[in-house]
Amino acid sequence: MKADLDQLMEKRGLQALVVVGDETYSVPRDYLTNGAQVTGGLVIKKRGADPVMIVNPMEVEEAAASGLTVYTNHDFGWGDLIKEADGDRSKATVKLWERVLQQQAIPPGKIGIYGTDDVNVYIEMVDELNQLADYEFVGERGLTLFDEAFITKDADELARLKVVAAATSATLQATWDYIAGHRVEGETLVKPDGSPLTIGDVKRFVRRTLLDHDLEDTGMIFAQGRDAGFPHSRGQTDMPLQLGQAIIFDLFPREIGGGYHHDVTRTWCIGYAPEPLQKAYDTVMKAFDIAITAYDEPGQPTHELQEAVLDYFEEEGHPTQRSQPSTMNGYVHSLGHGVGLKIHERPSLSHLTRKDILQQGNVVSVEPGLYYPDEGYGVRVEDTVYIDETGKMISLTDFHKKLVIEVQQ
Amino acid sequence: MKADLDQLMEKRGLQALVVVGDETYSVPRDYLTNGAQVTGGLVIKKRGADPVMIVNPMEVEEAAASGLTVYTNHDFGWGDLIKEADGDRSKATVKLWERVLQQQAIPPGKIGIYGTDDVNVYIEMVDELNQLADYEFVGERGLTLFDEAFITKDADELARLKVVAAATSATLQATWDYIAGHRVEGETLVKPDGSPLTIGDVKRFVRRTLLDHDLEDTGMIFAQGRDAGFPHSRGQTDMPLQLGQAIIFDLFPREIGGGYHHDVTRTWCIGYAPEPLQKAYDTVMKAFDIAITAYDEPGQPTHELQEAVLDYFEEEGHPTQRSQPSTMNGYVHSLGHGVGLKIHERPSLSHLTRKDILQQGNVVSVEPGLYYPDEGYGVRVEDTVYIDETGKMISLTDFHKKLVIEVQQ
Repeated sequence: MKADLDQLMEKRGLQALVVVGDETYSVPRDYLTNGAQVTGGLVIKKRGADPVMIVNPMEVEEAAASGLTVYTNHDFGWGDLIKEADGDRSKATVKLWERVLQQQAIPPGKIGIYGTDDVNVYIEMVDELNQLADYEFVGERGLTLFDEAFITKDADELARLKVVAAATSATLQATWDYIAGHRVEGETLVKPDGSPLTIGDVKRFVRRTLLDHDLEDTGMIFAQGRDAGFPHSRGQTDMPLQLGQAIIFDLFPREIGGGYHHDVTRTWCIGYAPEPLQKAYDTVMKAFDIAITAYDEPGQPTHELQEAVLDYFEEEGHPTQRSQPSTMNGYVHSLGHGVGLKIHERPSLSHLTRKDILQQGNVVSVEPGLYYPDEGYGVRVEDTVYIDETGKMISLTDFHKKLVIEVQQ
Repeated sequence: MKADLDQLMEKRGLQALVVVGDETYSVPRDYLTNGAQVTGGLVIKKRGADPVMIVNPMEVEEAAASGLTVYTNHDFGWGDLIKEADGDRSKATVKLWERVLQQQAIPPGKIGIYGTDDVNVYIEMVDELNQLADYEFVGERGLTLFDEAFITKDADELARLKVVAAATSATLQATWDYIAGHRVEGETLVKPDGSPLTIGDVKRFVRRTLLDHDLEDTGMIFAQGRDAGFPHSRGQTDMPLQLGQAIIFDLFPREIGGGYHHDVTRTWCIGYAPEPLQKAYDTVMKAFDIAITAYDEPGQPTHELQEAVLDYFEEEGHPTQRSQPSTMNGYVHSLGHGVGLKIHERPSLSHLTRKDILQQGNVVSVEPGLYYPDEGYGVRVEDTVYIDETGKMISLTDFHKKLVIEVQQ
């Protein structure tokens, strides 16, 4: 969590870290600047000190919302630097960084560069940065400092995650009711004007409902029939909703403009569930319970939960990623992942990840599934849970797990 | 434009380019894969050949929507590579790239790495990639290959930009009508229940209206009074809408899930406009006309348009970024920028950018403004225009430029 940043920097021997980013939403910038909505700029954190921001003068008001010390790039002579560099922004940026590091009195040593930006520019610029006396600019391999910090959430983060969870659960309920409110013609749901209710209609309803709860969609999955058999198939906009088809609805919205996520999946079937789908659903529901029950206490390796689920699915005769690593039938993914500012964080609940453990402050998804595209269905059931300060696993998702949406025939 | 990619690669001596990216929306991935909505994966383009995609097996269906050849990372033995690398993803990724480059028969030489991702990982990984025999992995400084390609839009892109423009203009009209439909109590707009209409209410209305047009907000500005005096201040959610205050409404949405943008700004004032605001507004409107009129023909340097506006504002006694480079009063930004998959592209309409020209296929914003935060207002007026195949500048924005929203007193 955030309070660990200095220790994580020390472990890596970093004197400071610099967070870069383009004009789109940036996770590490948000994390360090308390959600200030700036486009671009730099965040510099000296080990043991609060971060400071350097922004375009136009951004000072938004940057001030961070509560941090804010400088503009003019405070460091940006205009002159650009002129001296004859318009070469990389060259001018290197000089700007040098001035900022000096002004912040960063001791000689390693500086970590973090953030999401155009990698093309930085793999070139880092060589020039490394010609600055006193400093070595470094990346990382494996779990980065931010990856590590994100593994556990503090109380402020958990409070926000709970709000997003409640709003997401409410959106699921509204969507269930919206679908149930349509009438049936033949095997198809229809709107009051008689035209078919499509996946596009449902997604539009979901996006609006999310906005009403101050959330934004980040690419929901609403996939029916064969499409539900591919875990990341988003669903076809023009497809009408049909009775008796598996629908995988995977919703993972975040706070508007970027922020904390919730992650939940339900499998629904309108009207009635065919026998094979019902059987697969019951199996996945049992796998979900097995996963939750397999959790014992903080410190437990995450792969134990995945292995409990793998054992069960394999006993039931389903191929898995363990029994057939490249299978696209059966259980084809890991059990879950951390959820926070990024939708996929650590720990990873995978049998291939042997070192991740469950601990207080984790917020993770638990999402077993079975996929049979050639048989025209897939099933996934997912809640997001957290490990509280006493070590208990508690669900953040508050929505029922019924399969069949009953409709007026 | 896209058809120039091979030539842009040749100019840089690139045998191939690799586009990386994380699980969020990626501009260059979208550009090369015709909008396929995959999360992660690689896109590789050999010079002279179509791009190919390498994705997680779960993504194959979405990737297939690109119309490109799609491989999964299992086709290159990803599982074994991860095992051999003892879980070190960077190490395994380097091996995967080697296999992909061989399989694509990329001749020895330079490979450009592009895309938006965690720079921390790539500044580390590039050293290891450069130990591969035969290949040199390179970044760029200055205008990158994609920056250059984006400068001009082809007919398909322009068609999409026109749809986004029309939908954005319709959203402006709906927002104007929404505000005008509220009644006044004292100097404040109120809702039917008597509570004040806030900036948060308006933004919620705008986001919903955008969704109805299949667009998504990317961080609109709706800033009133002093906040309007800071060009990038987003506006305060809880602030009630007041009569006689400058409101800067800058809307730059994109296609849902990522795609082409439109960029438009209007300055509004509810009920009546105080004299200084009206005067500043008239000045900015004249500056807007001066900018458009200053455009002559393709090949013209962009700085000529900005200089025409600077001359006029300075004649009228306003400080500018040219007369006082660090000013936060007067005209404090450039005249405009390219608009496309990114909200800020080239060409830049700035007096500091001497080499950019206007040419057929450009889509650019034109957005003069005046800012006086201490006097409690700012003004900006912006349309997005394009240069058609005959060299004419044509506005994509179809919305009136009235200042005062009349309301029922």
